[in-house]
Amino acid sequence: MAEHEHIMADGTVICHTHEQNHGHAHSHTQTKAVLNRMARVIGHMESIRRMVEDGRDCSEVLVQISAVNAALQGVAKTILKDHLEHCIVDAVQEGDKEAIEKLNAAIDQFIR
Amino acid sequence: MAEHEHIMADGTVICHTHEQNHGHAHSHTQTKAVLNRMARVIGHMESIRRMVEDGRDCSEVLVQISAVNAALQGVAKTILKDHLEHCIVDAVQEGDKEAIEKLNAAIDQFIR
Repeated sequence: MAEHEHIMADGTVICHTHEQNHGHAHSHTQTKAVLNRMARVIGHMESIRRMVEDGRDCSEVLVQISAVNAALQGVAKTILKDHLEHCIVDAVQEGDKEAIEKLNAAIDQFIR
Repeated sequence: MAEHEHIMADGTVICHTHEQNHGHAHSHTQTKAVLNRMARVIGHMESIRRMVEDGRDCSEVLVQISAVNAALQGVAKTILKDHLEHCIVDAVQEGDKEAIEKLNAAIDQFIR
């Protein structure tokens, strides 16, 4: 947990990202869920690596990798929606064009 | 390392996957590389999880997730090529249709 963050009673994380967001505070409601899902993805990757170590059938390994890819897409979608609902709404209200530009660049890289 | 595997001097892993391959031995030349790349992907995922924990900018997190997705696609491609060059060539020579069917099912799931 970074020094500039506070978890509220409902699990909302209030973060003050001074550098990127010009000093305004914004909240992400999905941070806990994202962290949990990422931990599951990491555990899944570790088990796939063990499958390869154990010489398990390549077809089964490929199916598991595609499951991880799908899980990562889900995590990214959650982050994106959370970002839109909170940071971007704030950014628009405060006339912060840089946040929009950065998100557009990230989307460009994400959706090919 | 599973009991039924042997690493050769050149790093080739000879695995005898009796269940899936009807008792023939086949070799994967890329197993070491795949394991190393998977370890890197896991490390990368852990660092992205820390980025979320630290409240780093969502756009940056999305860019990193897309990098992991690309890395996983690369690993899957390597596994697929290795599988084709070794197991599938063997399977065809031995008239093992099940291996081809399993791989086709995996590809169906992987490429959408």
